[in-house]
Amino acid sequence: MIFLDAAATTPVRREALEAMWPYLSGEFGNPSSHHTLGEAAAAALAGARAGVAKILNCRAGEVTFTSGGTEADNLAVKGIALARRLADPSLNRVVISAIEHPAVEESARYLERVHGFIVDVLPVDGEGMVSVEGLSAVLRPDTALVSIMYANNEIGTVQPVSALAAVARKHGVPFHTDAVQAAGWLPLDVKALGVDALSMSGHKIGAPKGSGVLFTKGRLRVEPLVHGGGQERGRRSGTENVAGAVALSTALSLASAEQPEQAARVSGLRDQFIERIRAGIAGAVVTGHRLQRLPSVASFCFPGTSGESVLLELERLGVVCSSGSACAAGSDTPSPVLVALGIAPETAQTAVRFSFTSTVTGSELDQAADAVETAVGRVRNLASPQAG
Amino acid sequence: MIFLDAAATTPVRREALEAMWPYLSGEFGNPSSHHTLGEAAAAALAGARAGVAKILNCRAGEVTFTSGGTEADNLAVKGIALARRLADPSLNRVVISAIEHPAVEESARYLERVHGFIVDVLPVDGEGMVSVEGLSAVLRPDTALVSIMYANNEIGTVQPVSALAAVARKHGVPFHTDAVQAAGWLPLDVKALGVDALSMSGHKIGAPKGSGVLFTKGRLRVEPLVHGGGQERGRRSGTENVAGAVALSTALSLASAEQPEQAARVSGLRDQFIERIRAGIAGAVVTGHRLQRLPSVASFCFPGTSGESVLLELERLGVVCSSGSACAAGSDTPSPVLVALGIAPETAQTAVRFSFTSTVTGSELDQAADAVETAVGRVRNLASPQAG
Repeated sequence: MIFLDAAATTPVRREALEAMWPYLSGEFGNPSSHHTLGEAAAAALAGARAGVAKILNCRAGEVTFTSGGTEADNLAVKGIALARRLADPSLNRVVISAIEHPAVEESARYLERVHGFIVDVLPVDGEGMVSVEGLSAVLRPDTALVSIMYANNEIGTVQPVSALAAVARKHGVPFHTDAVQAAGWLPLDVKALGVDALSMSGHKIGAPKGSGVLFTKGRLRVEPLVHGGGQERGRRSGTENVAGAVALSTALSLASAEQPEQAARVSGLRDQFIERIRAGIAGAVVTGHRLQRLPSVASFCFPGTSGESVLLELERLGVVCSSGSACAAGSDTPSPVLVALGIAPETAQTAVRFSFTSTVTGSELDQAADAVETAVGRVRNLASPQAG
Repeated sequence: MIFLDAAATTPVRREALEAMWPYLSGEFGNPSSHHTLGEAAAAALAGARAGVAKILNCRAGEVTFTSGGTEADNLAVKGIALARRLADPSLNRVVISAIEHPAVEESARYLERVHGFIVDVLPVDGEGMVSVEGLSAVLRPDTALVSIMYANNEIGTVQPVSALAAVARKHGVPFHTDAVQAAGWLPLDVKALGVDALSMSGHKIGAPKGSGVLFTKGRLRVEPLVHGGGQERGRRSGTENVAGAVALSTALSLASAEQPEQAARVSGLRDQFIERIRAGIAGAVVTGHRLQRLPSVASFCFPGTSGESVLLELERLGVVCSSGSACAAGSDTPSPVLVALGIAPETAQTAVRFSFTSTVTGSELDQAADAVETAVGRVRNLASPQAG
């Protein structure tokens, strides 16, 4: 099997498993307990936090461990917007882009539906890019938060986060970015990016499902999603998933050390893969930005097919990928991300996303490209057999 | 080391680790992905859900996996109260007991602080019992939810949940119970209990930290805490912690199969332990109910000591326990639970809780009782050396 669905999830790295193992076995203490078992767990958690902080170039106290990327996004969007409005009732708008992950989009809609916020949605161009000027134009004195993703999960487009964050900062509005897909592939230095909040997920970078991180800058207040015993400096209550945090920190450190080399290597493979598909499949359309895109994502529409049928053929040929985001898999509605790019709904239904782990090889992508040509040909023949 | 802090956390059971292992290694799919890897993960999750549903005597669709007991409590209290008020704006009160875990207490306070709810707090008697008549008296037409814990984490008192739930049902008010401490020790049949919602935690019953469950009955609506891709029937978005869910289901099944026998055995050991402590230590006061208490919890105040000093002595003697809940460990304020029982703050500061795993032995508890006598004696001598 050639696994090209790494944007959905990744295998757990051996080093992450080894690092977490003690905390699934002998070192089972509760980090809040004041005895040696608890203190060992607390020390492991502190070490994991320091490890994440080092990669993000922030202080350990600015790192909140969550149960995943979706929770981190929810905590950022709802938590910052609500905390700001509780302090200043005039703040009742949030800005998001038109292609946010549902974790951000639905958090904003919750603020609208339950708390009466107004959601300003920034459009994107045909390649999925947000305009820096567009952000500047939409910001108002009553804007509580801007949340724009670092890199898109379906089309891989990378936003100009530091320029966007600078505009928000100039207007005094906190800026959050969903870095779930960027982690492992793009720099995560929050000072260089200039962001006030950044969320990421463990299982996209070789840690197990069930761990995530939210960075929040300095004293930026966050109304918790989960209240209780006051863990994580009161930002996220509940006994900490020590093993998950240790695994996430380990995987993040490894991915970050490898990032410059792997990003360059995989970007090259991605470009070759895209060129082969474009050359070999009539009408194939690359979705997302040609240059500003994740090294790990090659996404297409194949007019005259259905994405789901192509996926089935590809799986028979030993290639595993996705029609879009796993979160929307099986849904009959065309991808809102692709529709936001101006792609016609019937074309959006033909989308296929290939997303790579950092261990992907050129040989695998050669085989995959052959399989894609075969699969698209078969589906097109089935769709219009008289043309065959 | 004799580990008597099982109410804080428990070691992961070997069977739970073995059951979850495939989902930390080869079977790493995202349950939302529509390919064989994803389907294997989805099947594992469905199996875990069915396993939990069997123990709770409910339908699989009524089981929501969360990141832990605290999140499950938050989802129940906030989620049910908000969903009900969104449907009927007149519903703006919640009822909790005076000795809820902070996960429930702080969720109610959030509803009060941010959403304008009124929180009615039911008092408890000197043994920590809520009165069924008291609940009946406090319920009003505008009550959105009642949340009363099954068994208390500090003193082990077990509430008459089925009688309380029946009163709530008669008034048409949903009833939630925090069963985090009850799980593994008391029956969890939600139909027999008559509850509309029940939360529990994996790591208290031999699963790893980072997994929990919320049961919600039938079509009872829950406003999610975490919005996004719509996983868990829309009640809890985010890629599911498959390994954690599998481990929780495995540990719960084992604990439930062993429960009748272990509850009887450990209750007997607990009573012997309590009698030894009472006989051996002048002035020792048992906190909580004499009969209606968790098999696994023996809790005391030792006037003339400080709880923290006794803990330190006990740890030197090889016994690990707690002064109260791990969530409040290190706090200088006396336990609100003990204060709610009418215990004076200076006495509450002398509290020590012993909580047992299901593998605890009589020999361990004999040794522990000796150690407690020694430790309390030493601390009392230090406190008033002239009396020695």
